[in-house]
Amino acid sequence: MFKRLALIGCGLMGGSFALAARRAGLVSAVSGYSRSEKSTRRAQDLGIVDEVATSPADAVRQADLVLIAVPVASTRSTLEALLPGLAAEALVMDVGSTKCDVVLAAKQALGERIGQFMPAHPICGKEVAGIDHADAQLYQGQQLILTPLAANSPEQIARARALWLALGCTVRCMDADEHDRALAAISHFPHLLAFAFMGSLLKQAEGESYLAVAGPGFRDSTRIAAADPQLWTDVLLANASEVLAQSQRLHESLFVLEQLIQQGDGKALKDFITEVSQRRGLWKMGAVSKDL
Amino acid sequence: MFKRLALIGCGLMGGSFALAARRAGLVSAVSGYSRSEKSTRRAQDLGIVDEVATSPADAVRQADLVLIAVPVASTRSTLEALLPGLAAEALVMDVGSTKCDVVLAAKQALGERIGQFMPAHPICGKEVAGIDHADAQLYQGQQLILTPLAANSPEQIARARALWLALGCTVRCMDADEHDRALAAISHFPHLLAFAFMGSLLKQAEGESYLAVAGPGFRDSTRIAAADPQLWTDVLLANASEVLAQSQRLHESLFVLEQLIQQGDGKALKDFITEVSQRRGLWKMGAVSKDL
Repeated sequence: MFKRLALIGCGLMGGSFALAARRAGLVSAVSGYSRSEKSTRRAQDLGIVDEVATSPADAVRQADLVLIAVPVASTRSTLEALLPGLAAEALVMDVGSTKCDVVLAAKQALGERIGQFMPAHPICGKEVAGIDHADAQLYQGQQLILTPLAANSPEQIARARALWLALGCTVRCMDADEHDRALAAISHFPHLLAFAFMGSLLKQAEGESYLAVAGPGFRDSTRIAAADPQLWTDVLLANASEVLAQSQRLHESLFVLEQLIQQGDGKALKDFITEVSQRRGLWKMGAVSKDL
Repeated sequence: MFKRLALIGCGLMGGSFALAARRAGLVSAVSGYSRSEKSTRRAQDLGIVDEVATSPADAVRQADLVLIAVPVASTRSTLEALLPGLAAEALVMDVGSTKCDVVLAAKQALGERIGQFMPAHPICGKEVAGIDHADAQLYQGQQLILTPLAANSPEQIARARALWLALGCTVRCMDADEHDRALAAISHFPHLLAFAFMGSLLKQAEGESYLAVAGPGFRDSTRIAAADPQLWTDVLLANASEVLAQSQRLHESLFVLEQLIQQGDGKALKDFITEVSQRRGLWKMGAVSKDL
């Protein structure tokens, strides 16, 4: 499907993409660049990257597919740095968790060549960062959202879609602002909430002894609190207004439940829990209840 | 170790206990009673219970081990109902998620025979309820907390400990109020938070379409929101003051993070996330960082 992938940002997401794309026979060569030379070398040692480039522009020079997998706040500088080497026919994608800021950064960096950029967001990840955790199966069975631009050609959208389908993703398209609103609700804010909860626990004098008796419920509900700090700092700031709106809603929902507990209103409390428990029990990952 | 187990409450926790105890050779016969006759019959059909009793007192009559696995608010009435049939040498345990209220209920129900009751709490569960989900492996590798009473003999404590060890649990003893404080922090409040979050999502007009794009982070962080409504209504009411104290702390922790986002203070935000992310990354289930 492509000849050479240039991977800018040799971490968990990018490394997993390179592994998966090669395994699926979508690319035959991979050149890599990371700000951290150590990561790039490690990617080469692991066989994820064939050639180590000394700059983003060098990395992309022979590539017909470019994946930038860097914290979203670095999108503009990354694209500016690779632009001098970018071939006219190359497709450039990102994997950032926010899209409005990424689109703006891409427009600023690429100018009239913005049509080469296809904003993409695979809704998956791991609570561990770095190329050592790269996993060819990371994208298998996951959802991938494209937020195409007016400047993208239909052929390019079809090409991007086919690429992610070949990696085992289900692909859907939506507007960048729709994406950011939805992701704030079901990903960005839940991360903030997990960080807040862990922070609340650690601030308590007995927090460490509490942690010692925590079980599977705690394990699962706080797994995302171990996520990458730079990545999530960027995401939370980039999607601040939507995240803060979700946070306000959570405070209110929690106040309602607190009041029911204070009033000892077992019936209303059970009704609330029954409703959310049933809905959560029916939820299945990737089930399309309504097309966005 | 025992001859006959009487299981009062044929649901997920009790059914799993009966399966595990039999598989470990700790009991050779099981009599069962549930308020729901359907559950008891189903337990018999599944081979989890040998004999169906028509009352708690009937169920316990020949038993030297009694497990009550009912919502914590039903502890007192359950113990009162089984007392007329209870053999003098039988060991009675519960699996309730709260201990102060259970101990009080047990004292009220059992009076001078309170010494036969050993409060126990296995820190595990599933987000699905009912005997059909009973699993002989449920307790394997999990933590079990005993909150022994002054009236329990050392032999009885040793016997209870040996039983749970034989089921594959690690066992620790603590005071009931210590237990309830710790569990509020790492289990009860996280459940409330998950219910509140799901409630907040479902109240939004676009909640359903948001759910359609949710991924593995959402899946794990909200798994406990699908938990049993009656069980958790009881727990939240029984441990109300500790749960509300944790909720207050969460609001405050979230306010701190919201302010950092509003101020665009990426450095402080990243510092906060780095601290909690590192601690969560190091956390291991059952790791004793400090003896309670």
